[in-house]
Amino acid sequence: MDLDFMKKLVIPAETKIVMIILDGLGGLPLELGGRTELESARTPNMDMLTAKASLGLTIPAGPGITVGSGPGHLAIFGYDPIHYEIGRGALEAFGVDFEMEPGDIAARGNFCTVNADGMITDRRAGRLPTESSFELAALLRTIRVDDFRFFIEPVKEHRFAFIMRGPGLGDALTDTDPLITGRPPIQVNARNDESVKAARVANDFIDQAGRILRDQQTANMILLRGFSGLPDIPQFGDLYDLHPAAIAINGMYRGVARLTGMTVLEVGGKSIRDVFGTLEKQWGGYDFFYLHIKQTDTCGENGDFSGKVQAIEEVDSFVPQVMAMNPDVVIIGGDHSSPAVMRSHSWHPVPLLIYSKFTRSDGFQKFGESACRGGSLGVLPAKDVMQIALANAGRLAKYGA
Amino acid sequence: MDLDFMKKLVIPAETKIVMIILDGLGGLPLELGGRTELESARTPNMDMLTAKASLGLTIPAGPGITVGSGPGHLAIFGYDPIHYEIGRGALEAFGVDFEMEPGDIAARGNFCTVNADGMITDRRAGRLPTESSFELAALLRTIRVDDFRFFIEPVKEHRFAFIMRGPGLGDALTDTDPLITGRPPIQVNARNDESVKAARVANDFIDQAGRILRDQQTANMILLRGFSGLPDIPQFGDLYDLHPAAIAINGMYRGVARLTGMTVLEVGGKSIRDVFGTLEKQWGGYDFFYLHIKQTDTCGENGDFSGKVQAIEEVDSFVPQVMAMNPDVVIIGGDHSSPAVMRSHSWHPVPLLIYSKFTRSDGFQKFGESACRGGSLGVLPAKDVMQIALANAGRLAKYGA
Repeated sequence: MDLDFMKKLVIPAETKIVMIILDGLGGLPLELGGRTELESARTPNMDMLTAKASLGLTIPAGPGITVGSGPGHLAIFGYDPIHYEIGRGALEAFGVDFEMEPGDIAARGNFCTVNADGMITDRRAGRLPTESSFELAALLRTIRVDDFRFFIEPVKEHRFAFIMRGPGLGDALTDTDPLITGRPPIQVNARNDESVKAARVANDFIDQAGRILRDQQTANMILLRGFSGLPDIPQFGDLYDLHPAAIAINGMYRGVARLTGMTVLEVGGKSIRDVFGTLEKQWGGYDFFYLHIKQTDTCGENGDFSGKVQAIEEVDSFVPQVMAMNPDVVIIGGDHSSPAVMRSHSWHPVPLLIYSKFTRSDGFQKFGESACRGGSLGVLPAKDVMQIALANAGRLAKYGA
Repeated sequence: MDLDFMKKLVIPAETKIVMIILDGLGGLPLELGGRTELESARTPNMDMLTAKASLGLTIPAGPGITVGSGPGHLAIFGYDPIHYEIGRGALEAFGVDFEMEPGDIAARGNFCTVNADGMITDRRAGRLPTESSFELAALLRTIRVDDFRFFIEPVKEHRFAFIMRGPGLGDALTDTDPLITGRPPIQVNARNDESVKAARVANDFIDQAGRILRDQQTANMILLRGFSGLPDIPQFGDLYDLHPAAIAINGMYRGVARLTGMTVLEVGGKSIRDVFGTLEKQWGGYDFFYLHIKQTDTCGENGDFSGKVQAIEEVDSFVPQVMAMNPDVVIIGGDHSSPAVMRSHSWHPVPLLIYSKFTRSDGFQKFGESACRGGSLGVLPAKDVMQIALANAGRLAKYGA
């Protein structure tokens, strides 16, 4: 559905929508004929909702396409993740909870080592300890180019987020990383006229970085790739006439939510309990809440089937707390699948539950992949979920007479 | 599916298709775990077809989108209802069974009252009695502007359909209704060059209307909005190589069918029996029949659950009469849902049954939302139904070798 078309149908209402995203929710059984993580979990509260809800399976970007968290979230927020692309650099900045501003250009940085001739000897500088990376970042922060500002935010080991800020910077820039050793870093080149200035600023920064780091033992050069600004995307609140808030702990998800214009709330803790506690505390201030649960994906990627089951069960235990606030629409779903048996994200369609007093009950008793396969929402693009949520919230006018 | 692509595959055949549309067919149960209207209805004849049929749930315009009858019908006839949009004025004209011609511009009219300064005091003239509206319409019919013709067709109370006919009229025209009282009606403005003449003609008409109605007690002015011509849509008969006939009682559905180029048959009565009787009488003359049943939607919108059940049961009783004529393909479905518990149209997917001697039986015993949810047609866009019907009718060639 075209966002412009949808926007014309949006009407205001005094209703509240809660969207609970269990990252990497979809799974696979440990053995043929067995149950998935979600099906193995004891989820009495989600099951009670399931009995009243419409179910379906969401496809984040397209059949067979495995997505990262960026596109997975954009899709469930209603944006076509193929049209609206978040660059690698921006995602790296999101990951360290860096608040990018419009016009900022971000890149993924590596500390690396070069020999006396400037040829790369290790693209990751032996995966130097993260603490060393902090020391090197402090050195890089002394660099000045005209009136531009630079931010260097260590991620882990050799990786850091690089952001440049100032007027007139384009992001059509080539990578400096040749991806093999024995060659020198490549100059940043502008791929369009609007990015010529940015290329000059970046190259100037890199030259100075080389000089400043020259005598360091752990790493003596940097590589930058995936230069990207913020994509220009319609703001969630305007689009849906909602006052949206995001409750997420990890930077990546806070960043994507911020990109869509949601208010990103402070959670004040790292636990699932803190996420739901924040919802309760902030209930009066917003009419759309996005809650992000990371644990399910982490366990999926670690191959920890039972850990993922437990995370789902823990989320389930907070469902009564959500329902006690009497939300009009509750969505429980995921941004993608992360089956523990695959130890990675996957392309498998993701279980979805939508509950409101108007949902046509599909009559299933247990929330899970099998039930969702038979649900009345069918197998649907994730980007269509918001429309269905709005309809259930009485926030979409009739199309045509 | 692209209509141009589909059209290339169409081949002629000596087969007949009957499409029975129960308006607003989809529903909701009165209470959680209960049965919908269709599931509550005793439908032995539809159930006999169900046992041999393929089932599915149709989505008229998009997930979560509630449609009016215009887009709902265009979709089930195979047209993308977002691409082919019928304007408000045209729908108003359809509603009174006015036969619009290409080039006609229609609008929704209101009789209203204005004070001595021309400021609107009541946008609906106190919802004057429909008989008064007929008297005022007679006065308006005396208006002349050059060689243009005007049609004023009362709808109900203050509402009437306004149509202007003549060469070179565009429909990119602004409304005259300011939507609030205390202001004068707004001049019609052209939003493109092709509509400048139409704006002049409309404004001239409105000026004369103001003078003619000046001393009337019930209403002394008119408001016009939703100016629209007929959308240019591929003709159903050409597209599918069919000789299609529409059997519908209400103007709106006759109008939409006429728009697609179907022959709109005279029904000669207002009952469901008359609809099926017309089918029997006209069986030899056409190879595609669209039958429209209004009662289901009327009951849905009135919150009359049992009335809707009865209407469905009455339709069911005529199914043997249809089958006795040995149609090759029978489609039973709806243009949208109208759950009695919501007293309105809704976005819920609509039950669909397609029967032919080639349909893969889904093995269900009762036609209804639950069975359709598990059907082999899946949850599908309504605009894809015609293709499946054509395939079952032996009217689609193989694509590729």
